[in-house]
Amino acid sequence: MRIVVVGGVAGGMSSAARARRLDENAEIVVLERGAHVSFANCGLPYFVGGEITDASKLLVQTPQSLRAALDLDVRTRSEVIAVDTAAKNVTVRAEDDVYELSYDALVLSPGASALRPPLRGLDSPRVRTLRTVEDALSLRDEVHDGARRAVVLGAGFIGIEAAEALAQQGLDVSVVELAPHPLPPLETELAWLVTEQLVELGITVRTGIAAASVERGEDADTVVLADGSRLEADIIVLSVGVRPDTAPFEAAGIACERGAIVVDAHGRTSAPGVWAAGDATVSVDAVTGIRRPVTLAGPANRAGRLIADDILRPDTARAVPQPVGTAIVRVGELTAALTGANRSSLDAAGVSHRTLHLHPNQHAGYFPGASQVHLVVQIRASDGLLLGAQAVGNEGVDKRIDVLATAIRAGMRVDDLIDLDLAYAPPYGQAKDAINLTGMVGENVMTGTLTLWYPEHLDNVRDSALILDVRTPAEYATGFVPGSLNIPHTELRDRLDEVRDAAAGRPVRVMCQSGVRSGIAHRVLAQSGFDSASLSGGMLTLQAWLGARQSDVLERPEVLARA
Amino acid sequence: MRIVVVGGVAGGMSSAARARRLDENAEIVVLERGAHVSFANCGLPYFVGGEITDASKLLVQTPQSLRAALDLDVRTRSEVIAVDTAAKNVTVRAEDDVYELSYDALVLSPGASALRPPLRGLDSPRVRTLRTVEDALSLRDEVHDGARRAVVLGAGFIGIEAAEALAQQGLDVSVVELAPHPLPPLETELAWLVTEQLVELGITVRTGIAAASVERGEDADTVVLADGSRLEADIIVLSVGVRPDTAPFEAAGIACERGAIVVDAHGRTSAPGVWAAGDATVSVDAVTGIRRPVTLAGPANRAGRLIADDILRPDTARAVPQPVGTAIVRVGELTAALTGANRSSLDAAGVSHRTLHLHPNQHAGYFPGASQVHLVVQIRASDGLLLGAQAVGNEGVDKRIDVLATAIRAGMRVDDLIDLDLAYAPPYGQAKDAINLTGMVGENVMTGTLTLWYPEHLDNVRDSALILDVRTPAEYATGFVPGSLNIPHTELRDRLDEVRDAAAGRPVRVMCQSGVRSGIAHRVLAQSGFDSASLSGGMLTLQAWLGARQSDVLERPEVLARA
Repeated sequence: MRIVVVGGVAGGMSSAARARRLDENAEIVVLERGAHVSFANCGLPYFVGGEITDASKLLVQTPQSLRAALDLDVRTRSEVIAVDTAAKNVTVRAEDDVYELSYDALVLSPGASALRPPLRGLDSPRVRTLRTVEDALSLRDEVHDGARRAVVLGAGFIGIEAAEALAQQGLDVSVVELAPHPLPPLETELAWLVTEQLVELGITVRTGIAAASVERGEDADTVVLADGSRLEADIIVLSVGVRPDTAPFEAAGIACERGAIVVDAHGRTSAPGVWAAGDATVSVDAVTGIRRPVTLAGPANRAGRLIADDILRPDTARAVPQPVGTAIVRVGELTAALTGANRSSLDAAGVSHRTLHLHPNQHAGYFPGASQVHLVVQIRASDGLLLGAQAVGNEGVDKRIDVLATAIRAGMRVDDLIDLDLAYAPPYGQAKDAINLTGMVGENVMTGTLTLWYPEHLDNVRDSALILDVRTPAEYATGFVPGSLNIPHTELRDRLDEVRDAAAGRPVRVMCQSGVRSGIAHRVLAQSGFDSASLSGGMLTLQAWLGARQSDVLERPEVLARA
Repeated sequence: MRIVVVGGVAGGMSSAARARRLDENAEIVVLERGAHVSFANCGLPYFVGGEITDASKLLVQTPQSLRAALDLDVRTRSEVIAVDTAAKNVTVRAEDDVYELSYDALVLSPGASALRPPLRGLDSPRVRTLRTVEDALSLRDEVHDGARRAVVLGAGFIGIEAAEALAQQGLDVSVVELAPHPLPPLETELAWLVTEQLVELGITVRTGIAAASVERGEDADTVVLADGSRLEADIIVLSVGVRPDTAPFEAAGIACERGAIVVDAHGRTSAPGVWAAGDATVSVDAVTGIRRPVTLAGPANRAGRLIADDILRPDTARAVPQPVGTAIVRVGELTAALTGANRSSLDAAGVSHRTLHLHPNQHAGYFPGASQVHLVVQIRASDGLLLGAQAVGNEGVDKRIDVLATAIRAGMRVDDLIDLDLAYAPPYGQAKDAINLTGMVGENVMTGTLTLWYPEHLDNVRDSALILDVRTPAEYATGFVPGSLNIPHTELRDRLDEVRDAAAGRPVRVMCQSGVRSGIAHRVLAQSGFDSASLSGGMLTLQAWLGARQSDVLERPEVLARA
């Protein structure tokens, strides 16, 4: 049996390695268009930034090591230019040869290339991408040769990593993003924390604006934005998205959707004997049920492995899991991570949902180094099913997102999070971990014990309700919503008459710093007959929301602050 | 309605706080025997060690703050000395008063005291415990007053934390543990890593031995061990276990089991109107189904909260979850954590299980700072259900254990771990995370793709099989099993005849450094007709196993090592 694998990185190489483990006798040929296989594509930005210093570390395996360990026939610089699914063969263009190769099973894992929008001047040699080892080496050379200014087009995960890497090398870096904020899948209020961090790293962030053209210059190019502003650049990194490299496969009649190969639950394509995995495929999202491409290394690796099972053990092979879509990025001191669906994807899928905001400490508050994990969690309105979660913070973000990704995969409801026995000692968590607290808040929301209001309701709330701020006067003085009434939560029971007078029949909308004290106050008010609700995530969330909108609605009375 | 809560720390205070949020009108009285409520009991060792410097940080709440925020009537130095469950009242001994207090609902969360074994001399004033703020303050004073030598009796979680804290303060510390290794619930092969770390911290570790007596001296006491050896001590910290503080409740006829209060799925005791939570209760273990005390802060806090629900909203209250028993401890540079059942508890419960050992990196190997997470995972033999997991390592241990605790709670099987979409970027994980890899190894074991052998079989294997070590010659030279054959896995396919000759009809037992390469080699051998198995966890696990047994069976041929 001959298994031909197209693409020698994540999905393809996982498939080839697993196939060998299952079948010592199969002939396994891996065809890789580029010069390297099994390279550390996720590590490239860190090489550019100088954290990874040895380029050889980026090459996790070589054709020689794969031959020795797994008896794989790995052919680099070998591009598949045609497939005949009826005759079961592929046409390969190697460096000085074009030949046909028949297969019994064909695994397509060609990956994707950088999307090149139709932008005038984008063919300038100063425009680079960061997809291959060669890209990284060449960017690093530019840096060492004295590049001073860089413009990164696109502030997705790779764009952010590239921008930070170049800033680490001392370049003057600007990031341009068409979406309203960096890391577009992040919720607005979390993305603002990322924006602030980028600014702290010295990076200029231009969001909500398109690049109009690249003007070539003698000493530098100029990126011209839609508003006419001009950014000079020695290096321009293009990272506005990717495009599946599927032309020969689509031409062979293999079913594709917007250029990406459609696969079934076992990674099978529309052509018998042909499987596909990775960036070039579309999968059904585990949460929304919507088909979408998932360009992540983890799912690609695992799908590749499961495809080998389906080829060699079709009767017992596990299905390729529907992706939950967990992703993470380091941004300076911060970590930003997400799993499952966000508000906009749920809205697009028509799933009625509720949003929770929490800011718990990553570990015991009394233990040195405590810092907040800023959490946004989406739950299904009907039953509290966990739909998605995002987090930003200095520490403990990856852990909480991984636990939530596991809970989502398990089909847990938000109140099931109450019951999780998570590892607690002061350096690691709290007796009620951030995850448990999420469950408790979610259960309160689902049972009506807690009613929330949100930053996006601010204008309406200011018009029609009393905003009651239950922080201390000192906290209040650092910034507050104009017109709000300040009564600390510890005095509320004794001062309900003041609330009643000020509300004058209007609803009361409570807020505090993070949502904990306003939750307590809400219970007091609700049980005293008020129409009450608590601001989800409190001032921390509100400030981020307003920051993202460049709104300065908050007041800071200096007199009070000095008092 | 009057709710009386006995015990003002984890479970009791959670119950009281939740009760107030649910019912603004209830009278809620908290009776605490000690001087403080809501104190950071898990933080005490870090105060002794000097990482937490401000004693006030240990007091998370005070009676005053709880009155203000939650209208709780908190009475410290108030001990419940009797309960009349028929009349529904408790007898309270306060500082200068004894009084009766009636209740509509009674919540018992009295906690536990240090177990005091019947050891001669244990009444010496130099014998301390570390359960209260006063204990911590007094230990800290001793340290500042020039104590130089400490003996810690018991190397459980708190004993280890206390030992490290005292060593951090420059004391000469010995730990004495009756069990064969520190942290008795840890598997032997992981506990050895903890032992090595303790030694690195300068702590003397005496395991598998009992303390026989404490001899009081003028300048110092002497701890005499069962073998006659003597340890001088300015401070002796007693931490050999705890005993539930339930005497008045057991006397009141509330059903107890070995001194701990028996509760049902809603935290109800045998007496109507009486609930209990925390260290003084026994619960049904979620994995083994065996009733056992779980003296952990997390479950106590969550049970307390759910009890308030059951008191005030009995129709909709969630059940108190059966504990999975997740615990974690920092030991120097290491973290050790565990969740679910271990080998001995599974054996005791009669659950047939298989054990997996893995040593994956916590993040991408090519990213700076990569280090191994040493994992031991127990799965049910019949279907691969996850039963328990333990891990030791420098980084990323808490995350993996929390994910596994979540998976265990969700009733996942080991192969479900393959499908988890965990957050991957080079600083955080690997494209195939340690958890995914556990799933893959587990699936291989369950399907028979991988057959394992274990360190405990070493003697038998040496007698009856060929041990084939597939590491490189340089690795082999650093230490190997006498009589083993060394063929690197990359040469195995070409040298099968050598294996056949050396095996001479015997089974082949393969090993490498961590179990990955021997897994590959096993597949080659198994498919070539050999009776083959791969050493679970490889040399890393074997060395730890042998280390724990003080066995020096491994050879280190200096000639080869110099080659």
